[in-house]
Amino acid sequence: MIDLIKHPIVSIAAPSITLLNDMKDARTALDSFQIPYELSIVAAHRAPRKTLEFVAQLEVKEIEVIIAGGSGSAHLPGMIASLTTIPVIGVPLRGTSLDGMDSLLSMIQMPKGVAVGTVGINAAFNAGVFACQILSAKHPSLHDKLKLHKERLEELVKSEDEKVNIVDRPAD
Amino acid sequence: MIDLIKHPIVSIAAPSITLLNDMKDARTALDSFQIPYELSIVAAHRAPRKTLEFVAQLEVKEIEVIIAGGSGSAHLPGMIASLTTIPVIGVPLRGTSLDGMDSLLSMIQMPKGVAVGTVGINAAFNAGVFACQILSAKHPSLHDKLKLHKERLEELVKSEDEKVNIVDRPAD
Amino acid sequence: MIDLIKHPIVSIAAPSITLLNDMKDARTALDSFQIPYELSIVAAHRAPRKTLEFVAQLEVKEIEVIIAGGSGSAHLPGMIASLTTIPVIGVPLRGTSLDGMDSLLSMIQMPKGVAVGTVGINAAFNAGVFACQILSAKHPSLHDKLKLHKERLEELVKSEDEKVNIVDRPAD
Amino acid sequence: MIDLIKHPIVSIAAPSITLLNDMKDARTALDSFQIPYELSIVAAHRAPRKTLEFVAQLEVKEIEVIIAGGSGSAHLPGMIASLTTIPVIGVPLRGTSLDGMDSLLSMIQMPKGVAVGTVGINAAFNAGVFACQILSAKHPSLHDKLKLHKERLEELVKSEDEKVNIVDRPAD
Amino acid sequence: MIDLIKHPIVSIAAPSITLLNDMKDARTALDSFQIPYELSIVAAHRAPRKTLEFVAQLEVKEIEVIIAGGSGSAHLPGMIASLTTIPVIGVPLRGTSLDGMDSLLSMIQMPKGVAVGTVGINAAFNAGVFACQILSAKHPSLHDKLKLHKERLEELVKSEDEKVNIVDRPAD
Amino acid sequence: MIDLIKHPIVSIAAPSITLLNDMKDARTALDSFQIPYELSIVAAHRAPRKTLEFVAQLEVKEIEVIIAGGSGSAHLPGMIASLTTIPVIGVPLRGTSLDGMDSLLSMIQMPKGVAVGTVGINAAFNAGVFACQILSAKHPSLHDKLKLHKERLEELVKSEDEKVNIVDRPAD
Amino acid sequence: MIDLIKHPIVSIAAPSITLLNDMKDARTALDSFQIPYELSIVAAHRAPRKTLEFVAQLEVKEIEVIIAGGSGSAHLPGMIASLTTIPVIGVPLRGTSLDGMDSLLSMIQMPKGVAVGTVGINAAFNAGVFACQILSAKHPSLHDKLKLHKERLEELVKSEDEKVNIVDRPAD
Amino acid sequence: MIDLIKHPIVSIAAPSITLLNDMKDARTALDSFQIPYELSIVAAHRAPRKTLEFVAQLEVKEIEVIIAGGSGSAHLPGMIASLTTIPVIGVPLRGTSLDGMDSLLSMIQMPKGVAVGTVGINAAFNAGVFACQILSAKHPSLHDKLKLHKERLEELVKSEDEKVNIVDRPAD
Repeated sequence: MIDLIKHPIVSIAAPSITLLNDMKDARTALDSFQIPYELSIVAAHRAPRKTLEFVAQLEVKEIEVIIAGGSGSAHLPGMIASLTTIPVIGVPLRGTSLDGMDSLLSMIQMPKGVAVGTVGINAAFNAGVFACQILSAKHPSLHDKLKLHKERLEELVKSEDEKVNIVDRPAD
Repeated sequence: MIDLIKHPIVSIAAPSITLLNDMKDARTALDSFQIPYELSIVAAHRAPRKTLEFVAQLEVKEIEVIIAGGSGSAHLPGMIASLTTIPVIGVPLRGTSLDGMDSLLSMIQMPKGVAVGTVGINAAFNAGVFACQILSAKHPSLHDKLKLHKERLEELVKSEDEKVNIVDRPAD
Repeated sequence: MIDLIKHPIVSIAAPSITLLNDMKDARTALDSFQIPYELSIVAAHRAPRKTLEFVAQLEVKEIEVIIAGGSGSAHLPGMIASLTTIPVIGVPLRGTSLDGMDSLLSMIQMPKGVAVGTVGINAAFNAGVFACQILSAKHPSLHDKLKLHKERLEELVKSEDEKVNIVDRPAD
Repeated sequence: MIDLIKHPIVSIAAPSITLLNDMKDARTALDSFQIPYELSIVAAHRAPRKTLEFVAQLEVKEIEVIIAGGSGSAHLPGMIASLTTIPVIGVPLRGTSLDGMDSLLSMIQMPKGVAVGTVGINAAFNAGVFACQILSAKHPSLHDKLKLHKERLEELVKSEDEKVNIVDRPAD
Repeated sequence: MIDLIKHPIVSIAAPSITLLNDMKDARTALDSFQIPYELSIVAAHRAPRKTLEFVAQLEVKEIEVIIAGGSGSAHLPGMIASLTTIPVIGVPLRGTSLDGMDSLLSMIQMPKGVAVGTVGINAAFNAGVFACQILSAKHPSLHDKLKLHKERLEELVKSEDEKVNIVDRPAD
Repeated sequence: MIDLIKHPIVSIAAPSITLLNDMKDARTALDSFQIPYELSIVAAHRAPRKTLEFVAQLEVKEIEVIIAGGSGSAHLPGMIASLTTIPVIGVPLRGTSLDGMDSLLSMIQMPKGVAVGTVGINAAFNAGVFACQILSAKHPSLHDKLKLHKERLEELVKSEDEKVNIVDRPAD
Repeated sequence: MIDLIKHPIVSIAAPSITLLNDMKDARTALDSFQIPYELSIVAAHRAPRKTLEFVAQLEVKEIEVIIAGGSGSAHLPGMIASLTTIPVIGVPLRGTSLDGMDSLLSMIQMPKGVAVGTVGINAAFNAGVFACQILSAKHPSLHDKLKLHKERLEELVKSEDEKVNIVDRPAD
Repeated sequence: MIDLIKHPIVSIAAPSITLLNDMKDARTALDSFQIPYELSIVAAHRAPRKTLEFVAQLEVKEIEVIIAGGSGSAHLPGMIASLTTIPVIGVPLRGTSLDGMDSLLSMIQMPKGVAVGTVGINAAFNAGVFACQILSAKHPSLHDKLKLHKERLEELVKSEDEKVNIVDRPAD
């Protein structure tokens, strides 16, 4: 629990349960940082008015970062970003035959003035990490967790390295 | 003037004057069919609420077809299509370094249930022709104009063919 | 049954039974709107003369919208569009190793003057929805069905949202 | 003049004068081999019926090879190939914002059973060379011209090599 | 047996048995036209000198058309074309992670003066058809076989059309 | 001046003066929000050790957001992100023949655990906006500036709309 | 054992055990040339400081060639190359949804002055061969092994050719 | 002059004078390291037999590294690599409408067993640097030059950094 705040400060949204499942790594990351979050199904194209209501509630609920995914014409992160000043992290999801290139380009090539900070294709875990980095400015206790996170990444690499670090010495 | 209707029945929209100019061929096409139309600057990302108002007025104004263009994360046609049942023709415009591939994919890879009929990159003229084809169901006088249009295309090809139709006969 | 019309008003065509099956969602969409349609195997390259006859019959049969699919060098929608003024909706199908990018580009980059309104790769359902939107001008009863369709899309999103809308509250 | 044949045996076709000009290197190649040819403006989409007549006349005129170009949804070579058994060489032309990738894929990804022998983007010269190679089976005098052509290519490389073949010897 | 010729007149080559198997449709096509052919494993990169010998023998053996496949840096058709004036048909094969785009571009973007007539990705059948079209100039009996081939294509389309040609008549 | 803080809280970095100039819109955005920033030339590949020192100083200098650009193998944002927990916004710059697709993919496809929030190709202005959104959590006065920014975007759209909002009424 | 050297002279590195396994063909190649090598897990992004140490040790250990792989934003080969003058061979690995195009472009589009010699996607075997070619300058005994390697490639092609070299002679 | 060797030890080859000029940065790099080199026009497709002679002479001339460029179906580096065990560095050149993607893929996707170490598109300078890295194993004096080269890169970055390193302090 960060800084004794108990309500969700991150909102994770996707246009369907299937796509939300593709983003489960964002939850894993936020859980590891003990950052409370909410989950929503929000569909810019199929339920545009509900999307407006969803965004209108975000400031009321004191959400500080939004993680939004989408596939194909992945407009959700952009539409949210057009309606709020809370930072939006976009996760392009691989959902059509084009391997996520369509969602990546739909999400990232935003017009001048409206920004979405986009992570890699299907990189929901990194969206969670980036959310934590953004939140750490206001919630200093996250700094230590991020440093721990980096140490663990390094540990993992070291541990894998020890397993494979063999020196080949062919017999004379 | 088709069928004595004097108010605009096509609405042409783009997110900026620059992009609207890239779509001037849509006007040329509609003018050639004498279809009255209106022009608007509508920006899904930079002015989302205005976009809602714009769409809300379309049915009031008895608009029958919408032609919407966009570049980059070209969400305008999709956002309009999510808010109305009037058919939307999308025109992907070449506006960024990616030569229109980003706008084409953003526009065409819509989710199941919300459709945008998309034409080629920068093909605003064809958007005007396609609008005329859609309108011809309700406005039968357009049928003759479309047939004339096809005859003119064929004439043009024939006329160009006559210019070049030479048979090469090298000297013996 | 729309407006007491009992003959097919949409014609769905593909170059083979396999590809027609890839378009079965177009039928699902049209069925949901109770729009009568016909099915044909038409192959621009392998049976060009039959394609001409097919198109010639479309006006006789009072077809109002054509939905045509294709993969690879997907010329069928374009060839039909070159021969009639009835609006043609193109469905690029994923049939070769290129994941539908070849059929998308073959179908959408039409020359000035001949338009195909193209939907997303394998997006046959949306072709059916777009056909319904076009038809609604002449068949007003479809307007209500389209509004119902949009409401159902929104319902589905809401229903999915209720399932996942959990607020994560880690134990103190 | 090959083998005393004086009528055109190659037919070069493109959908517009502009695109035919982009193929002028095909003429240069055929001229260098003294192969008589004809030129036509044929547009599969804008003048489909004229295209049928054009193809019907090809066998009457004893054309032996067809070179057809196109840009965008470049259907001309494929449509001709669907209507005749005379070999068709396709030249994808760079005419839209996609640098010829659209015309290349539209032209080459033909369905099983209908073939277009395609050359590189804008490679009209090579279309002329390939036509000559095909014709050489029936017109043996072309063999010598092809061998001469290869010798000239080699000469050109040698001559350029002599110009640049310097050995860098920096001062001690 | 065409025109009483009993020796192979087409040479099919690929850089490995695996890739040659990917081209088995070329054999199917040639068999259907009763065109005698030979098969070889030729590898431009792994056995360049053997490739030279292979090409040198082609004219001795009176080969009239070469069908060469390759994947990745698919240089075989181009290397053969650089060494002979016999027409070379290239078949880009899908053999790496890039779905054949690498082999297509390696094969088709030949320098000015050296041509490869390329067919679609993995389209070995069409290579066989195109070979037959080229051969028909010198072997007139193939004309009838090609016409029969076209009729069969059309029959197949008609037969598939009859199966699906249903008219949907929803109950009143 | 935000919240009476006078030292730079954003660090803008690029690998060369040329590329830093391509990012001048980031400065324009930050200036419009009156956010103090610093500028550096940092080159992950050409001066890796200096890059380490640069990153080490960022926390000392109490930098809160980093905006890093790059072209080609654009490793700078990723390398910085690997060395600090301060959020890094990546700007893929168009600097090679590949129109920025190489820098976009190099920047965004980061491994699990190390995130870069990437904006569109050459979209330095949006990087500045996104930085402001991130900073607003800790510097509340930026909220009003962001709302003003959104209003201005909307004003601009409205003002452009007024200029073009003409209704075409062809003479009877 | 080359030239009586018993310590590793090639260092193979990848960011994870999974990716190192994708490079096992590099080991196969080096084993076939009897070149001693070492294996390491090195992760430019997840363990940047360890990467520095790793590179610092390479010269101490008298490593002569480095083979480094990576997927996605594949920065490892480039980061190593930025820190040493020992030649680095990069192996782009297919690890994300983009089939290795992201790793290829991340690895190869290096800035002026810092080079990575890159081989094909997943082409770890060729990285081993290229390492051997580089090493042969200082270790002349490798020349014979490379010639033997080329002979074996040619043998394999010949042996496959003998298996398939059939001449089709249809019955009269 | 390295190690008192006065004959060329690097061979730079391209298929035409135009393309060789596109590689002039390779000369600049080699000149800066005082490495003697030779220049040749060699064209795998247009002068294949001359290419064989060229490669046969390389070992006689004691060439130690080959730098070969090409555009389009850029087979030259691969063809040379198939004929010699001297390491070949490939430079994909931007020469057609595809911005070098065709030459990059043609060059790098080599079959198992034959390697080309490829650098970035038009990155001839880096080919020169990589050649120097390879040569330094046998010519130890190049080590110091490479270290100097790295220092100069770093100096340049530092010098540019000093120019732009301004801290923005807006007036209170």
